[in-house]
Amino acid sequence: MQELAYADIKVGDSASVSKTITEGEIVTYAGITGDFNPVHVDAEYASKSMFHERIAHGMLVSGYISAVLGYHLPGPNTIYLGQELKFTAPVKIGDTVTAQATVMEKRDDKRIIKFKTTVTNQREEIVVDGSAVVKKVGL
Amino acid sequence: MQELAYADIKVGDSASVSKTITEGEIVTYAGITGDFNPVHVDAEYASKSMFHERIAHGMLVSGYISAVLGYHLPGPNTIYLGQELKFTAPVKIGDTVTAQATVMEKRDDKRIIKFKTTVTNQREEIVVDGSAVVKKVGL
Amino acid sequence: MQELAYADIKVGDSASVSKTITEGEIVTYAGITGDFNPVHVDAEYASKSMFHERIAHGMLVSGYISAVLGYHLPGPNTIYLGQELKFTAPVKIGDTVTAQATVMEKRDDKRIIKFKTTVTNQREEIVVDGSAVVKKVGL
Amino acid sequence: MQELAYADIKVGDSASVSKTITEGEIVTYAGITGDFNPVHVDAEYASKSMFHERIAHGMLVSGYISAVLGYHLPGPNTIYLGQELKFTAPVKIGDTVTAQATVMEKRDDKRIIKFKTTVTNQREEIVVDGSAVVKKVGL
Repeated sequence: MQELAYADIKVGDSASVSKTITEGEIVTYAGITGDFNPVHVDAEYASKSMFHERIAHGMLVSGYISAVLGYHLPGPNTIYLGQELKFTAPVKIGDTVTAQATVMEKRDDKRIIKFKTTVTNQREEIVVDGSAVVKKVGL
Repeated sequence: MQELAYADIKVGDSASVSKTITEGEIVTYAGITGDFNPVHVDAEYASKSMFHERIAHGMLVSGYISAVLGYHLPGPNTIYLGQELKFTAPVKIGDTVTAQATVMEKRDDKRIIKFKTTVTNQREEIVVDGSAVVKKVGL
Repeated sequence: MQELAYADIKVGDSASVSKTITEGEIVTYAGITGDFNPVHVDAEYASKSMFHERIAHGMLVSGYISAVLGYHLPGPNTIYLGQELKFTAPVKIGDTVTAQATVMEKRDDKRIIKFKTTVTNQREEIVVDGSAVVKKVGL
Repeated sequence: MQELAYADIKVGDSASVSKTITEGEIVTYAGITGDFNPVHVDAEYASKSMFHERIAHGMLVSGYISAVLGYHLPGPNTIYLGQELKFTAPVKIGDTVTAQATVMEKRDDKRIIKFKTTVTNQREEIVVDGSAVVKKVGL
């Protein structure tokens, strides 16, 4: 991977990753974090919940934002300083989410970049809204 | 699991989970999210970075906050509305993190609970700081 | 497992393994390798691609050839020297693939064995064609 | 992710991914493929083998080539036609591998691109050598 230089990142630049959410990764994420809330791992319970079926952890879905920032824009040599998240709609097994980060603001003295970050589903509904702050080191 | 009732949750209540961060879960989390930033998955690169070794993804570490809220306090029948995160220090393989959530405020009309959320390491340093907002449904 | 002796391996000998390809292993393989090409992990994108649905990574499917050689014929004490692969047809979730290796040639001085290697699907279509070269050590 | 156009890919272009090989992914890869050759999954056996310790599956390591081609260069809308692999040195747990693909040749009439593909370890030794052929569709 080639490192993106701070100077080459412009307000309005955007990157995204998309993935279909599978049962397997919900289970694996539950295993990593220990978040076994039944709405995520218990299909019987979830079928009687307000969501009618198992949903993905909001923080799992938000992880794709981290992937955009850490692997694509800016990518290597990015220090993740902060993230604000609003979980606005559930994500179900089989939904395809797209995490997108768009440069909103740059503070050149501190090499800090502020991003608008959203995750949408295949119906273009926002499922996670928010913003991120990173610092670009290196180039 | 017994469901905790909204009325039984008091300002000042607190719960936590602790876990030692392993190479395995960093690699697995990279695999779930696609965040292959070399500071997480490339030991050679990381050894020359400002962190001197591989570090955990900030969002992976933050997932333990979600586990506290979703599995312990309040636990089942909690809708996660939002999360603010500040990544204040790196977490390395072998570090033991403790995610803690403490009730700061309740809005009875909407059954909304605001938590202070922190993740600390084994030296009591805060590695993730922030707050969460949830809505308690059910009981 | 009993080790197979070089002398007991004959031209024409053949072994195979079969497996149904699941969404879980495609996602897991994407996670191991970091190959998040959307045709593998994004059902929406894949539905509009020339394949009409998600397909398995060619190298994932080819891994079953390695399993035949490394675990069955010749099995233990085999050094894998080379593999040629032609990806001739897509493999979709739910397809059942059979990887087969057939001894084509032996070079006794160097204990080298050349195999024809194919992976076919449940309709007997070849999805991966090619050949492998191994060296038998030990017995 | 933005799609790379065929016309923008030049002879000499190169991309790479790097990853430290962990025990976890060797075990996971064994589980996906069923290649339980003891040199990969049995530490006792491996300690007495010519490699003195467990080594990664050659096809696992080669999967990072697929990641470069499928996710970086050319990335989306690439059809993987063929791959030649020579396994030239073992990869052990803790080694960091870099898979690199370099454009060697383009056949404009068929939009076919031939790559030199290598995987090297942290000592710059080639562990997998070979070449790949892909067809670029889309842009």
